[in-house]
Amino acid sequence: MDPKQVSQVEEVPPTHPRYWSLVTRQKLVDALREGIVVPHGLISHGRGEAFDYLLGERSHDFAVEAERAAVAAMMVARKPIISVNGNYAALAADEIVQLSEVLGVPIEVNLFHRTEERIKRIEDFLKAHGAKLVYGVDCQKTRLPNLQSPRGVVCVNGIYSADFVLVAIEDGDRTEALRRLNKVVVAIDLNPFSRTAQAASITVVDEAIRATRNMIRLAEELKGRPKDDLRLILASYRNSEILSRAFKALLERLSIAASKGVVLDLGFPDEISL
Amino acid sequence: MDPKQVSQVEEVPPTHPRYWSLVTRQKLVDALREGIVVPHGLISHGRGEAFDYLLGERSHDFAVEAERAAVAAMMVARKPIISVNGNYAALAADEIVQLSEVLGVPIEVNLFHRTEERIKRIEDFLKAHGAKLVYGVDCQKTRLPNLQSPRGVVCVNGIYSADFVLVAIEDGDRTEALRRLNKVVVAIDLNPFSRTAQAASITVVDEAIRATRNMIRLAEELKGRPKDDLRLILASYRNSEILSRAFKALLERLSIAASKGVVLDLGFPDEISL
Repeated sequence: MDPKQVSQVEEVPPTHPRYWSLVTRQKLVDALREGIVVPHGLISHGRGEAFDYLLGERSHDFAVEAERAAVAAMMVARKPIISVNGNYAALAADEIVQLSEVLGVPIEVNLFHRTEERIKRIEDFLKAHGAKLVYGVDCQKTRLPNLQSPRGVVCVNGIYSADFVLVAIEDGDRTEALRRLNKVVVAIDLNPFSRTAQAASITVVDEAIRATRNMIRLAEELKGRPKDDLRLILASYRNSEILSRAFKALLERLSIAASKGVVLDLGFPDEISL
Repeated sequence: MDPKQVSQVEEVPPTHPRYWSLVTRQKLVDALREGIVVPHGLISHGRGEAFDYLLGERSHDFAVEAERAAVAAMMVARKPIISVNGNYAALAADEIVQLSEVLGVPIEVNLFHRTEERIKRIEDFLKAHGAKLVYGVDCQKTRLPNLQSPRGVVCVNGIYSADFVLVAIEDGDRTEALRRLNKVVVAIDLNPFSRTAQAASITVVDEAIRATRNMIRLAEELKGRPKDDLRLILASYRNSEILSRAFKALLERLSIAASKGVVLDLGFPDEISL
């Protein structure tokens, strides 16, 4: 399809009741055109949207608690890394770069649907947003022993040797593989049922942009604290409890809806007249 | 991006735990490449997928009840029509054609991201799947008075003059506009919170392929019944109750999950060791 034509037809009128949600989607659609995101990435985004809908599109307390533990773990880790895929870059490039800068944690571009061309494109995209520490096309590569190639390709000095990996909107199979290699994995994922959410050491059930912004704020807050304080945060953290609270939040919203059925009063009658 | 290259990188290994779900997605991705589906359609599909996950990927009793009422309404209506967009065509072309045939109800290709080129493509796609009664590029056109063009463009002898419209995976704003024109609107939508689900006369909270298959079966069952029987089905139907039961089903699944937190036992410890 001709990209120009697509961009023409996809103009959404500002009178649309969900205008802003549709405009956010446009970010991903634009990234598809630029080769940053693959078509499957759009489906993942939609899946996340559904859960954010259920959560009321805000960062809950269980998310902030996980974000705090994630930052503490990143600061305690010997060799932390932020793994970035197409969706995460497209949505939150500025925030990723800022988080990387605040804590001096490098970024690795790592893709499920890997091509060196797309790695390069995302690397350039992040660098254009100010990223300095990026493992991309030029790193020394190896393979994770427990993932079929090319999905298991990683940088030797990046994910391969890291003891901590932050992933966002990631595939569950890969999250599990990282975990089986005894790495601490923080996953940003709006779906607490997903394999990623279930497999992670710390699950941030929050939207990627909001989550990363919260983590930047928390990094600034926790910076300079003694390591023992940070270890205390980790010692008292239980991911199963966080997941449980995430499910409960979804539950509460649904309880209200279940008692009413109609949650948007549009003024239509319940009867069918034909 | 070169389509050949994309199709190469998107091969999913059969060892992946969610192989079949990923293969179904591929249908939509292929349709994107053929110009049947727009990028935004993939996001919508993802949103639906998430709700189907929560529903356990099966047709619940509240869905079948709505499907039965939908078929009854279609049989009682003076001038019913099946509105088909890119996603619905890509997922369920065979089923749409069969439903259209069984009840003699025509199809109109109607798009949110409308171009005459894409209308033609979907029209041809449906005809290749055996559709005979299709309003597409060649119909006499007019506009719905309450929708900004080109989103309001419809066929005079199709949606414009219909008293019943079946839509699937539709935009909420458009569903609402059809409803305000006093049409009976049946919406197939997996998200009971959506404006479409909330605005419809009959909301089928079910996956589009399953829903259409159920409706074909119900049409064969109800065919030949006196109109008074069909009107009785409609008289006892209450959409707010159906929506309420849909929310309750989501609630039940989540209640079990909320009590446990970890719902997939992958054998990882709850403690974080760094």
